[in-house]
Amino acid sequence: MANVIDEIRAANRSFMDLFKQADAAGVAALYTHDARLLPPDSPMMTGTDAIRSFWQGAMNMGIREASLETVAVEGGDSLAYEIGTYTLTIQPEGGQKKTAAGKYVVVWKSEGGKWKLHVDIWNSSGT
Amino acid sequence: MANVIDEIRAANRSFMDLFKQADAAGVAALYTHDARLLPPDSPMMTGTDAIRSFWQGAMNMGIREASLETVAVEGGDSLAYEIGTYTLTIQPEGGQKKTAAGKYVVVWKSEGGKWKLHVDIWNSSGT
Repeated sequence: MANVIDEIRAANRSFMDLFKQADAAGVAALYTHDARLLPPDSPMMTGTDAIRSFWQGAMNMGIREASLETVAVEGGDSLAYEIGTYTLTIQPEGGQKKTAAGKYVVVWKSEGGKWKLHVDIWNSSGT
Repeated sequence: MANVIDEIRAANRSFMDLFKQADAAGVAALYTHDARLLPPDSPMMTGTDAIRSFWQGAMNMGIREASLETVAVEGGDSLAYEIGTYTLTIQPEGGQKKTAAGKYVVVWKSEGGKWKLHVDIWNSSGT
């Protein structure tokens, strides 16, 4: 279990680093090949290509950073879930910097000996 | 696995029936004692009392029915996740009936030999 948490934290650090570098393909590679993304106000998306396009679009819209903080992890073996909070830093070209805060649930799955995001859903915290 | 899906489907039928009867305590009893609810535009809530209050508030605001449809289930032993879609039927006192559609992820946990909702997060489908 300690290992699972450590590996999830490490994967989240990669997520944040790759996001800051606007590397949508790198972010998408942190997900399983058949992962599902459930963004607010959008239909569900499935698979690496759709997930890369989604994050590329978010970066193009001015999301510069995604800061992730783990609140709870439970599970083991091949599936685990994580609850966390996020803060997005948004600065469209020539626009003002602002932030958006929310919470998420990620189901992590071990694929090829690596823990990857398998289901990713989030919503606003309303503040 | 077939058993898990059957039990989740049965619990969802109970959820829908109890919701239609405006039985917030009955709905809350379908969750584990330390379950977490992550509603959109709201902070995270933990435990039976908070979850009962939340659903009571939703019923008071005019949500009459919650229709749930399972899209995928994966897991086993003591933890499983479900992806689904929902349609809420909303009719405030003296107001017009409308619906709101979205998608959800529920982490189910076996508690006292029964599969219960342990983590529940959802968001709008944007249509």
